Amino acid sequence: MTFITEDFLLQSSEARDLYHGHAAALPIIDFHSHLEARDIAGNRRFKTMTDIWLAGDHYKWRAMRACGVSEEFITGSASAREKFDAWAATVPKTLRNPLYHWTHMELANPFDIHGILLGPETAEQIWEAGNASLCQERFSARGLPMHFNVEVVCTTDDPTDSLEHHQAIAKEDSFPVGVYPTFRPDRALGVQDTSSFRNWILRLREAADSDIGTARDLISSLRKRAGEFHEAGCRLSDHGLDEPYGEEVSTDNAERIFAKAAAGVAPTATEVSLWRSWMVRQLASIYHELGWTQQYHIGPIRNPNSAMLERTGPDTGFDTMGDPPSAGSLCRMLDLQARDACLPRTILYTINPAANDAFATAAGSFSNGGTPGHVQFGTAWWFNDQKTGMEQQLECLSRVGLLSLFAGMVTDSRSFLSYSRHDYFRRILCNMLGDDMRQGLIPRNTDLVGELIRDVCYGNARRFFGFLQYQRKAFS
Amino acid sequence: MTFITEDFLLQSSEARDLYHGHAAALPIIDFHSHLEARDIAGNRRFKTMTDIWLAGDHYKWRAMRACGVSEEFITGSASAREKFDAWAATVPKTLRNPLYHWTHMELANPFDIHGILLGPETAEQIWEAGNASLCQERFSARGLPMHFNVEVVCTTDDPTDSLEHHQAIAKEDSFPVGVYPTFRPDRALGVQDTSSFRNWILRLREAADSDIGTARDLISSLRKRAGEFHEAGCRLSDHGLDEPYGEEVSTDNAERIFAKAAAGVAPTATEVSLWRSWMVRQLASIYHELGWTQQYHIGPIRNPNSAMLERTGPDTGFDTMGDPPSAGSLCRMLDLQARDACLPRTILYTINPAANDAFATAAGSFSNGGTPGHVQFGTAWWFNDQKTGMEQQLECLSRVGLLSLFAGMVTDSRSFLSYSRHDYFRRILCNMLGDDMRQGLIPRNTDLVGELIRDVCYGNARRFFGFLQYQRKAFS
Amino acid sequence: MTFITEDFLLQSSEARDLYHGHAAALPIIDFHSHLEARDIAGNRRFKTMTDIWLAGDHYKWRAMRACGVSEEFITGSASAREKFDAWAATVPKTLRNPLYHWTHMELANPFDIHGILLGPETAEQIWEAGNASLCQERFSARGLPMHFNVEVVCTTDDPTDSLEHHQAIAKEDSFPVGVYPTFRPDRALGVQDTSSFRNWILRLREAADSDIGTARDLISSLRKRAGEFHEAGCRLSDHGLDEPYGEEVSTDNAERIFAKAAAGVAPTATEVSLWRSWMVRQLASIYHELGWTQQYHIGPIRNPNSAMLERTGPDTGFDTMGDPPSAGSLCRMLDLQARDACLPRTILYTINPAANDAFATAAGSFSNGGTPGHVQFGTAWWFNDQKTGMEQQLECLSRVGLLSLFAGMVTDSRSFLSYSRHDYFRRILCNMLGDDMRQGLIPRNTDLVGELIRDVCYGNARRFFGFLQYQRKAFS
Repeated sequence: MTFITEDFLLQSSEARDLYHGHAAALPIIDFHSHLEARDIAGNRRFKTMTDIWLAGDHYKWRAMRACGVSEEFITGSASAREKFDAWAATVPKTLRNPLYHWTHMELANPFDIHGILLGPETAEQIWEAGNASLCQERFSARGLPMHFNVEVVCTTDDPTDSLEHHQAIAKEDSFPVGVYPTFRPDRALGVQDTSSFRNWILRLREAADSDIGTARDLISSLRKRAGEFHEAGCRLSDHGLDEPYGEEVSTDNAERIFAKAAAGVAPTATEVSLWRSWMVRQLASIYHELGWTQQYHIGPIRNPNSAMLERTGPDTGFDTMGDPPSAGSLCRMLDLQARDACLPRTILYTINPAANDAFATAAGSFSNGGTPGHVQFGTAWWFNDQKTGMEQQLECLSRVGLLSLFAGMVTDSRSFLSYSRHDYFRRILCNMLGDDMRQGLIPRNTDLVGELIRDVCYGNARRFFGFLQYQRKAFS
Repeated sequence: MTFITEDFLLQSSEARDLYHGHAAALPIIDFHSHLEARDIAGNRRFKTMTDIWLAGDHYKWRAMRACGVSEEFITGSASAREKFDAWAATVPKTLRNPLYHWTHMELANPFDIHGILLGPETAEQIWEAGNASLCQERFSARGLPMHFNVEVVCTTDDPTDSLEHHQAIAKEDSFPVGVYPTFRPDRALGVQDTSSFRNWILRLREAADSDIGTARDLISSLRKRAGEFHEAGCRLSDHGLDEPYGEEVSTDNAERIFAKAAAGVAPTATEVSLWRSWMVRQLASIYHELGWTQQYHIGPIRNPNSAMLERTGPDTGFDTMGDPPSAGSLCRMLDLQARDACLPRTILYTINPAANDAFATAAGSFSNGGTPGHVQFGTAWWFNDQKTGMEQQLECLSRVGLLSLFAGMVTDSRSFLSYSRHDYFRRILCNMLGDDMRQGLIPRNTDLVGELIRDVCYGNARRFFGFLQYQRKAFS
Repeated sequence: MTFITEDFLLQSSEARDLYHGHAAALPIIDFHSHLEARDIAGNRRFKTMTDIWLAGDHYKWRAMRACGVSEEFITGSASAREKFDAWAATVPKTLRNPLYHWTHMELANPFDIHGILLGPETAEQIWEAGNASLCQERFSARGLPMHFNVEVVCTTDDPTDSLEHHQAIAKEDSFPVGVYPTFRPDRALGVQDTSSFRNWILRLREAADSDIGTARDLISSLRKRAGEFHEAGCRLSDHGLDEPYGEEVSTDNAERIFAKAAAGVAPTATEVSLWRSWMVRQLASIYHELGWTQQYHIGPIRNPNSAMLERTGPDTGFDTMGDPPSAGSLCRMLDLQARDACLPRTILYTINPAANDAFATAAGSFSNGGTPGHVQFGTAWWFNDQKTGMEQQLECLSRVGLLSLFAGMVTDSRSFLSYSRHDYFRRILCNMLGDDMRQGLIPRNTDLVGELIRDVCYGNARRFFGFLQYQRKAFS
């Protein structure tokens, strides 16, 4: 079987030359992930393949459910081995899904399992071999990023986070990977659920050590915490939005909505929308002040399956793509920030690829002044994080924007095994450019094309975000 | 001319091996069509090519109109031969449209006309040869399904249908094809046109032999008729919806709307929407009880050209694609059924390929428990029922869902000649997978890939729907 | 370097044969451009590469801004050479963007600069060589269309235009290119800005030499001016719409809205929408009377970046794609005209490729009677005017419409150098059809395929619009 070879995804000699000559050896800057800093600080070890490979992986869970696997073997009480076997039985059914590629890429690297496909008849063999590997230091929460040549990894953190784990990691000179927090204040926008909102305000008050009696206080506390995040190396924020929020809202109006929610009275749908509009604008101004890059992840419908939400909770594989018209509100959201002269560097991600062109084009309408690629269309996200999705994003970005300025790939993952997705991305990128060369669509100029590849895979991210990592040490 | 060869659409040796080795010989389960059971029961014969090929074929009519052909030669009073000639003159203008492929595939099989393209200069020859073939038994309404190795065909029927033709067919042991009704209660949702709605209620009352004075009565009558459909072998329902309907509506509210419509007072737009939401939920519960699969065909704008509607009536080639945001309402519609624990197996079809990803992803959010592929994204439909459309559907389903669970292709056709579209689909599927193999995107494992092909082309449909056909006779 | 060769974009021998045998030598009918008739009448000469290549080219400006170039070097006070150098430094960053192709295609033809890529190190050489060429007669505003074998070019003109330049050009027998105005009454729909609307009404009153006290008067004046446009060779109108307007509005209601705007009172958003609905319907009737073709360019969000609008004005590279649901309103707009029996030949363009299928399908629902391709889906526009965008438009048109009836490509350009985009289009079209042939998707019938190519590149436009050019002189 010649499935996952060293030339996987590389269909032309040009592509192979570009990949092996320019992309393969580059370090990784993984500027958006959902890894836990706690795991890295404690150098977590994983006992079984189920712990490292299935726990929290809602992509796999979703596929298992579609195959009729009972919840007991997914998020339920079945044993680690039973869950692994349920997954192994599912894998052959995922042919053509990215899970099929990821699975065998991860078996090949880091597990060094080649020439064998996961399925019911190979489950035992892979379970044993995989578990044996997990005993090695290379498979710890620190070993894996080092194995994959990761230079920077950004976690995703609530503004109330203590940052203790990031601080602990930063103190250890022997660990070369920069592990930085990302400021994700989704809870500050979640005014629709007053009980949860009020609880979060209490926690923020503690974390920021300041009273929060008004909307203005809330912003002050967030600004204080953002400063502390900045100290810990944070250079990005992130927002998960169902849609863009671009209404013009006075601070007085925001105060009224805050007071209402603080009193436990649920705001109306319109007030929720106004609050969010006001909040993203205030926060953008903070990010701009700190020289950060803000990320907007826009469009999911979360928890549409209410019966399963009750049973398995959020983020367990039931979310889906929304399709509200959003070009107008996206523009208004960015315009307010640009008018304030406070539009930070911004990366826009869409959950629905039907919006690719609208998002990529809107980015170009606000990318004036300052940094190259100041506002840019981000990498294929979530359901789109697969070969076709990436090709569509790269194609769209190329034709209505500038590929050369792209800050590149992120794992967006909860798993320490997902770094191979950077390799996946690089192969797809090089395959596309190699094919262009072969067809005469771009010049056969390896300097020009190689530079673009190195920039997109590494150089742009290194320059764009200003991570401490590249201020602290000399680096070629 | 080497146009429609035995390797048509198969671009690699891998694709050719997969098609000829795994797909070509499989029987057909055509679980969604618009054929008339009456024609099969009566073993209808067709006199001319115009009768069998142009009558009712609004795809062809639309193309003829675009070419400037006068309505007289389309739906008007021109002779069969004149209409055929008008079509023949149109064919060369359809190059790159699926009509060009279908036309020459159908001439090749069943008409055995090869090496000649339809056009004005060949019209006479094809008219004569085609008409001569129609005298053969093989070209009757029973001969054609048998010729094409059809095992099951599902018609589309109003709940008021007598089912007499289905029953007559079922009694004839010499005819091996299972011909089953599909329950399509669109009229039950059509409360906006009170006159038509009331007439239909009267017919339903007769068919169900029960009074219908309330919305609850209406549901009871539909449940009774569904039971009779089930007896006649029905295992699927079908709904044609302009958009999904997912509002939560009390039965009291539904009763009020029913009473209004029953009294001849037109409900408001909101009431129409609420009525439909209530109705699809009630019906889903019936389908679930019966173990059926429900189909939702979502999105067309019907009869937008009002001048032509007056002239030629509905379903004559003037419908088009809508583009309302529908991900949210689709989720709410499915969620209500899932909350009731009454979500039947469901196939979602979208008229607008821009919604492919949203539909395929939503299906995955509700496909938990029970049957593999419980809620799934259906085959490329109507305007999308062509090579690119199918490739997009297969690609989308593969990457955000699981291709291996796909129940597969349907003709959705009014013509007994359309079975070649299953062959078209199979070639496209095998070409895609063969190309994957050639590129190393999937393993060169013919067992694995061959099984997927056999499942998608036949096996899944055989297992998924529970047709009587496969309970009645032993079958490998 | 073998980048822009004579076989650029042609990937198969079939494609090369089709292009060189059928497409390359055809004249150009550029039925939609933004060239200035004044420039042609005066046979404008260009002093530097910056004047002819960068002035007004908001595609290039946008790319420069994305690269972080300061506005001074884009629309500001920097010297022509400084601006050229800023562009030269941007070019290598545009790899995979259409600008990279256009740039090197235009250097190759008409500048005859081959084997060299524009960039900082070649800027001096290209600046000198390009400027030297500009001294030649071939590079004047008349020389360039003749060089490119242009037979017809349509400018885009306000109804108040004096048409003096078109008339002057028409009188000169020595200039063989037909230069015709296009009637673009966007200002007549712009009732939301009463001050601008009233000023325009005053100008129209003068141009039409008639009082305008009512909405009916406005229509009369527009009809009068349309007649004068027709005399000057106009056969097309054009509308730039953010979305389709299809509400049914009485003339009385229109009069009320007009009176309000004429009195300087801003109409409500609903009134603006009603006014536009009424206006497009009235205008369609005029176009129908005159036998014109109307163009609808639908969907952009204009001037979303308000800070930059203040600084650089409209049409400077900040517009973007909207994504409102528009299939329904598009159908209603066309239906009203069809019901009036006043639907002119119509070309529909969408800014957002996610709407391609809905637009192409809607066109087919109204293309009955009269001209072949009466209502048709127009060429890839603006952001989509690039290889992938064109392929998507051609693919969509082919599968849900009829490619063979397509009136073809337009430059939509402000630059006399953009004619090479017709060559770009032709190569893409031939490549697609050659690839179809190679794959056996269409017959290897050069007569059939060659005819389609000649029709789409030239013949259809020649027949469809009825330009004076083809009535005045004998033409093969």
